[in-house]
Amino acid sequence: MGPGAGLDEEDRILLFYFKMKSILSEADQKESPSTVVDSQATRELVCELCRNFYQLGWASGTGGGISIKEDNHIYMAPSGVQKERLKPEDIFILNDNGDIAKEPGRGLKLSQCSPLFMHAYKIRNAGAVLHSHSLNAMAATLLFDKKFSIKNMEMEKGVEGFGAFDTLEVPIIENTAYECDLADSLEEAIRNNPKSFAVLVRRHGVYVWGKDWKQAKTHAESYDYLFEAACRMKQLGIDPSR
Amino acid sequence: MGPGAGLDEEDRILLFYFKMKSILSEADQKESPSTVVDSQATRELVCELCRNFYQLGWASGTGGGISIKEDNHIYMAPSGVQKERLKPEDIFILNDNGDIAKEPGRGLKLSQCSPLFMHAYKIRNAGAVLHSHSLNAMAATLLFDKKFSIKNMEMEKGVEGFGAFDTLEVPIIENTAYECDLADSLEEAIRNNPKSFAVLVRRHGVYVWGKDWKQAKTHAESYDYLFEAACRMKQLGIDPSR
Amino acid sequence: MGPGAGLDEEDRILLFYFKMKSILSEADQKESPSTVVDSQATRELVCELCRNFYQLGWASGTGGGISIKEDNHIYMAPSGVQKERLKPEDIFILNDNGDIAKEPGRGLKLSQCSPLFMHAYKIRNAGAVLHSHSLNAMAATLLFDKKFSIKNMEMEKGVEGFGAFDTLEVPIIENTAYECDLADSLEEAIRNNPKSFAVLVRRHGVYVWGKDWKQAKTHAESYDYLFEAACRMKQLGIDPSR
Amino acid sequence: MGPGAGLDEEDRILLFYFKMKSILSEADQKESPSTVVDSQATRELVCELCRNFYQLGWASGTGGGISIKEDNHIYMAPSGVQKERLKPEDIFILNDNGDIAKEPGRGLKLSQCSPLFMHAYKIRNAGAVLHSHSLNAMAATLLFDKKFSIKNMEMEKGVEGFGAFDTLEVPIIENTAYECDLADSLEEAIRNNPKSFAVLVRRHGVYVWGKDWKQAKTHAESYDYLFEAACRMKQLGIDPSR
Repeated sequence: MGPGAGLDEEDRILLFYFKMKSILSEADQKESPSTVVDSQATRELVCELCRNFYQLGWASGTGGGISIKEDNHIYMAPSGVQKERLKPEDIFILNDNGDIAKEPGRGLKLSQCSPLFMHAYKIRNAGAVLHSHSLNAMAATLLFDKKFSIKNMEMEKGVEGFGAFDTLEVPIIENTAYECDLADSLEEAIRNNPKSFAVLVRRHGVYVWGKDWKQAKTHAESYDYLFEAACRMKQLGIDPSR
Repeated sequence: MGPGAGLDEEDRILLFYFKMKSILSEADQKESPSTVVDSQATRELVCELCRNFYQLGWASGTGGGISIKEDNHIYMAPSGVQKERLKPEDIFILNDNGDIAKEPGRGLKLSQCSPLFMHAYKIRNAGAVLHSHSLNAMAATLLFDKKFSIKNMEMEKGVEGFGAFDTLEVPIIENTAYECDLADSLEEAIRNNPKSFAVLVRRHGVYVWGKDWKQAKTHAESYDYLFEAACRMKQLGIDPSR
Repeated sequence: MGPGAGLDEEDRILLFYFKMKSILSEADQKESPSTVVDSQATRELVCELCRNFYQLGWASGTGGGISIKEDNHIYMAPSGVQKERLKPEDIFILNDNGDIAKEPGRGLKLSQCSPLFMHAYKIRNAGAVLHSHSLNAMAATLLFDKKFSIKNMEMEKGVEGFGAFDTLEVPIIENTAYECDLADSLEEAIRNNPKSFAVLVRRHGVYVWGKDWKQAKTHAESYDYLFEAACRMKQLGIDPSR
Repeated sequence: MGPGAGLDEEDRILLFYFKMKSILSEADQKESPSTVVDSQATRELVCELCRNFYQLGWASGTGGGISIKEDNHIYMAPSGVQKERLKPEDIFILNDNGDIAKEPGRGLKLSQCSPLFMHAYKIRNAGAVLHSHSLNAMAATLLFDKKFSIKNMEMEKGVEGFGAFDTLEVPIIENTAYECDLADSLEEAIRNNPKSFAVLVRRHGVYVWGKDWKQAKTHAESYDYLFEAACRMKQLGIDPSR
């Protein structure tokens, strides 16, 4: 008889459950031979949030995505893949300089957003950075010139440091042919707008961050609401910046 | 041999199932040592409805939420958290004066909406009160001055006391910098509009209640439909209040 | 030893599964002592479709719903309840005259739509009739006077008897204070528009039917698409009826 | 004792699991007596993607759908059915000439889109072709004459060969009474627009393809975003083609 002998039926089934879980868990660990702290939970969270963002329309095509910092390493989705179908083993892990510490292989490539994300991590000490291709964000860049501006909206409170009667501004940078070429102007926009947790990119989308993934996500939802509100206001002939 | 000896295979598996269920159930009860009647079902219902409202776009960022009265206690979501990810153990329980009877701890804070919710419970004998950040509700406050007004809509029947040809009005109060400062004007609006089950807050959202959670939810869905209908009508050049 | 003795481990687990299924199935049958043919599958289908329609925005509040004819009986949701939370045991069964053959009890009331639904069953020999509160249907009644009219749309093919270049019309009847008072004008509209599988009700919604639930549902989706298309066309300055 | 004797409890349960899986798998294979390579995974993928497209509003009524090429055979949904409720056994398999290699029977008919899909397979060596009835695609055909045209949008990168500052064009062909009659003009449009991975059909929808199902799907999402963006731009008085 095997290792289950002498146990209750119930306990043996329970044992079986934990044995299976352990086998599956070991299988995961076999992909992780390096000394990098590799959090399966963080890998799964990146995938779950990408599915969430796909549902919200922020990650259609292969656009959008999120990266999360955990134990001085950054978990980032690969480039050019369907974000709602990511699997935990597809995630890149970068060290806090932005260098690849562990890669999924299988031909997956690091996101071109990587240097952009790193600016928010370094300059703002972000805990998570996301990129959204939301049509609301894109449309907001058609309504304003250098800065998106809105005021007197309760939802502004969703962004740290803002009250309902403040003027909330988000800088808009011009798009570039290659995403990596956005890095310099994004860095400049981040430095010049210390109150903002987001940078819009003309006819493209928005980068949003927060001190952790929860704040990055709630910031992104709050900004997206404000972008959509501004579009609706314009249609009603109301100036959102007053 | 353990307690499963002498039983059929099938029965032992069934026994195992109920044993596991009992262990899990006891674990829940260990968190509830006080004498407060603490309904796990109500806690779960608050969470389920918050997920529902997130899907509807009523609780993006950390906005919106619902509280439910059960056995003279009020179950309320904490402040500043992602409403679609609430867990049953995150819920506050208040007594019917609005004082905290049981709190989740772990740094969670009572919602600022608490005093607002209490007005509907006390003045209107509500069984549930919800708060929505729906863009339809927000936009409705841009279209009207002191009161939202619509008539000749079948969906008015979704609100208790209203027929399809009645004029349905919802008072609009001005937003305040701090949510708690809304309490006085909300109370006044509730008292001055005895037929309304909702109060709109300018550029913010709406408070809706009902005699129980089912009515509060169906009221909220009906009001939201009417707010959206009014916005569509305005775009078509139709006056919703005629 | 019990009835599982002498069997393989695997077979006994299989046996257990079917035993549990049988117990659950008997429990269901105990609620059905009458001689009415009572299809659990049809009850479940009504509930599933109601959830589907809630997701589509056709059944917010307590509005909308579907009834399905099976073996000369009509399965119908009760009145004034949240349609997405219906359970199979909540369904009314009517005979083909519209009289209640079996009711759920527990204070549930037959839908006021019942006489309306019956007209489509009797006059058009429908196999399923649904009622939608879709904002697209409601808005379509604001754009047209006596009849909704659209042409040159591929989606017209989704309605039996129509081609992409036909003019598709849907009669619009005026709303009444009580839903039951719609019955006469609905009947008249059905008789006067033998090609239509739908009747719009001003500022209310739409009734749609088909030879079976599949056709009723695909008809309803096709009509809803055409209603939304007409609204979009009007906004772009295009006349949908030309 | 059966085949499980001498094994651990855990192993026997595992064995049971694989035995059940094998039984179910054999049942599937019994429906596949021919020599056609018949991939159950591809059948399931077609169904999964159809559910996905229904959620996106691309396959309401019985419209829309996807076909996928695998091992020189093309897996295609039947005509006139609810696409979100397809089952793997409903799928047609065609050889690479477009002839039926295996059919589901049960009265299911091959899609009228079949000859249209074949043009993309033959002329462009596509690995998957989809057809969407999205309202965004339909509306885009109302805004442009012979060709949809947009430029300076990041989302153009979602289509192979396009950069963010390119002009992306999609030919628009006129709709026909019978879908099969579109075949010639679709072929001509494909041949005349070698850079495009899509052809719009007036007041109907769009055909989109890619080298495999992933690219076809991401192409379709990117095009749909651009169609919606163009509609929003027109409403804001912005010309999308400049």
